Amino acid sequence: MPNVSKKGQRMPASPIRKLTPYAEKAKSEGKTVYHLNIGQPDIETPEGMLNAVKNIDFKVWAYTDSEGTLPYRKKLTDYYNQQGYAITPEDIIVTTGGSEAIAITFMTCLDAGDEVIVPEPFYANYNGFANQSDIVVKPIMSYIKNGFALPPISDFEKVITDKTRAIFICSPNNPTGYLYSKEEMEALKALVLKHDLFLFADEAYREFCYDGQTFVSPMHLDGINENVVIIDTVSKRYSACGARLGCIITKNKSVWQTALKFAQTRLSAGMVEQLAGQAAIDTPPSYFKTVINEYSNRRNTIVNALNKMEGVYCPNPGGAFYVMAQLPIDDSDKFCRWMLEKFSYQNQTVMMAPATGFYTTPGAGLNEVRIAYVLNNTNLEKAMVCLEEGLKVYPGRIRSHEASVVSSESL
Amino acid sequence: MPNVSKKGQRMPASPIRKLTPYAEKAKSEGKTVYHLNIGQPDIETPEGMLNAVKNIDFKVWAYTDSEGTLPYRKKLTDYYNQQGYAITPEDIIVTTGGSEAIAITFMTCLDAGDEVIVPEPFYANYNGFANQSDIVVKPIMSYIKNGFALPPISDFEKVITDKTRAIFICSPNNPTGYLYSKEEMEALKALVLKHDLFLFADEAYREFCYDGQTFVSPMHLDGINENVVIIDTVSKRYSACGARLGCIITKNKSVWQTALKFAQTRLSAGMVEQLAGQAAIDTPPSYFKTVINEYSNRRNTIVNALNKMEGVYCPNPGGAFYVMAQLPIDDSDKFCRWMLEKFSYQNQTVMMAPATGFYTTPGAGLNEVRIAYVLNNTNLEKAMVCLEEGLKVYPGRIRSHEASVVSSESL
Repeated sequence: MPNVSKKGQRMPASPIRKLTPYAEKAKSEGKTVYHLNIGQPDIETPEGMLNAVKNIDFKVWAYTDSEGTLPYRKKLTDYYNQQGYAITPEDIIVTTGGSEAIAITFMTCLDAGDEVIVPEPFYANYNGFANQSDIVVKPIMSYIKNGFALPPISDFEKVITDKTRAIFICSPNNPTGYLYSKEEMEALKALVLKHDLFLFADEAYREFCYDGQTFVSPMHLDGINENVVIIDTVSKRYSACGARLGCIITKNKSVWQTALKFAQTRLSAGMVEQLAGQAAIDTPPSYFKTVINEYSNRRNTIVNALNKMEGVYCPNPGGAFYVMAQLPIDDSDKFCRWMLEKFSYQNQTVMMAPATGFYTTPGAGLNEVRIAYVLNNTNLEKAMVCLEEGLKVYPGRIRSHEASVVSSESL
Repeated sequence: MPNVSKKGQRMPASPIRKLTPYAEKAKSEGKTVYHLNIGQPDIETPEGMLNAVKNIDFKVWAYTDSEGTLPYRKKLTDYYNQQGYAITPEDIIVTTGGSEAIAITFMTCLDAGDEVIVPEPFYANYNGFANQSDIVVKPIMSYIKNGFALPPISDFEKVITDKTRAIFICSPNNPTGYLYSKEEMEALKALVLKHDLFLFADEAYREFCYDGQTFVSPMHLDGINENVVIIDTVSKRYSACGARLGCIITKNKSVWQTALKFAQTRLSAGMVEQLAGQAAIDTPPSYFKTVINEYSNRRNTIVNALNKMEGVYCPNPGGAFYVMAQLPIDDSDKFCRWMLEKFSYQNQTVMMAPATGFYTTPGAGLNEVRIAYVLNNTNLEKAMVCLEEGLKVYPGRIRSHEASVVSSESL
């Protein structure tokens, strides 16, 4: 019997989905499980986007251009230029979700053994895509104590080698919710110019900034056009995760042309999705106003509830719909599993993502969990009660003087 | 300015799409271009499949399970078991098109430097997916003189090394249309068992077999469950190329579990497509009867017209919707481009795919083109008149005594 590849054996399982069997079991036993583990919002997809699907009028469901249909790329261009990006349809390649945008960007810019620097914690699937291409993720630690702000530039410079090809950021961040400031973005710009590196920016959560804070994209900065590759998706913007529609944006023509060859190999992104994405650009501003207000309220609910719990600390992030919380626990993997397998409060429990999956440094994130605030406030409040009750009786609970020992701050 | 990867530089441009700019130019000059270069049929997608899209009734366009929704996998299981496959939903991973099925299969089973043996000519994008994963395609020549039948098993054995991990077949074949017989499949089975190799089978054209010939899948053979990975897509079956919906089927649990990790990294295939795919399984048999009849007539039109042209030879293939034709020309890339750039007959011309892109052996396919019979008989007839007229005046035409020198038979 032939064996699977070593690459396949190394491939990490999804930290977001690996506890799913325990959640399924809990549900089959009649427990209510609040799913705060995955970035699948309950927010409704804009009606105009769904209507575009319902109103298709073609007879042949055909391939599109590999770079995406021109009408869709034109609409996208309008959207991005309203955000101050100054791009043309020729700077865009439409992809099958943000996932494919990451995979193609990695293959376009890095060879096997090349290194990409990523502030950690980071979206776990970056590891998966890096492993697919045999490229090396070099993590730089960011810390919960300052809300996971950009690490000092000197920390980046320490790990830059002749194999370093790119820096990869995500702002507003998944999993931390942290929103990079203009100053932090300028510091990154100087760094990539100094070392002639690519700057990959995952902007899936662009629309979700709170407390009047402003989103800053590398596309807003002068003089780094040749270095920047933007990775985007409609998944979060329009609560359309299952549409699998994203894009790459770059002003670097060589990158664009090369990415197109990878895009041609898989022929095209979905045709119906591109029609829907085109319609989505006309989503009224009121939709975003309502959604941002809702997320902001949820964040307040979660952050307040967490910080009231004994031994728990949760920074108040500026964007996205995640928080990272430090809990008085021995091991977040054990704890999250225990919450599903052994615990219930009024026949309810909570599913969270253990933070260990968002770090590559061994031991980091052991006392942290990622919580996605993708349920309404009523359910979030119930979920927080469950979490508080769970923490009271969890056998692996650590008292405060012990907690500091395993804090990620000390790593 | 940072450079793109070496992998990106090596990445082949699509031989099917690389002449597109010349076709666009010809059309902008008012020429009618018959597109026989790409496997995008004009056949209508089944109404039930399109209605499933029009009738969506969800409010949140959500991720699905990474392996595909259970309802869709159950329907697929019914379909495959009607074909005699004896599988369960747990043997299937739903993918974003056959393209992703190939990419995931390669990564699951082969590491960088590992080798996969493929009878050539073969679907050009196999090269792209191999290059993505730094794996090595070892071609085995098949010949137009016997209709591109399976090469002798001894030819395979000559190139098997300790790096060889798999044999990759496509039947009915793209680009040749050749349909492997039961005997050929049994020979392949003995080979993969003898050398403990994977057998990857691209079955995109399963439904399209002509003249009463029977399709044989590796899933119909006993004793190689652990070796076989089936790659499938709805693209051609339901003329739904733009749906980007395919799957992997394997009874090898280790392969399935590993492929799932790659699938989890990209989260899920499209939700709407899976609903559409589910409905597609109920497509009435009359649909296929009509379509197969149509393709079979078109094949007859094309094969007859080609073989009547002076210096042209075209085998009569048993399946798919492609033929490979040997033409009295110096260089198929030059010829196909010349047809678009320099030639017209009654203000019309034909776009074909130069066969060189379907071979990896240098010089092979120089006097062959792939023709996809994806237009109706009337247009096919007009296209064949254009081709005949073009061949008469093409400056690189080779007289018959010279033609044998560059024939692929001599390679």
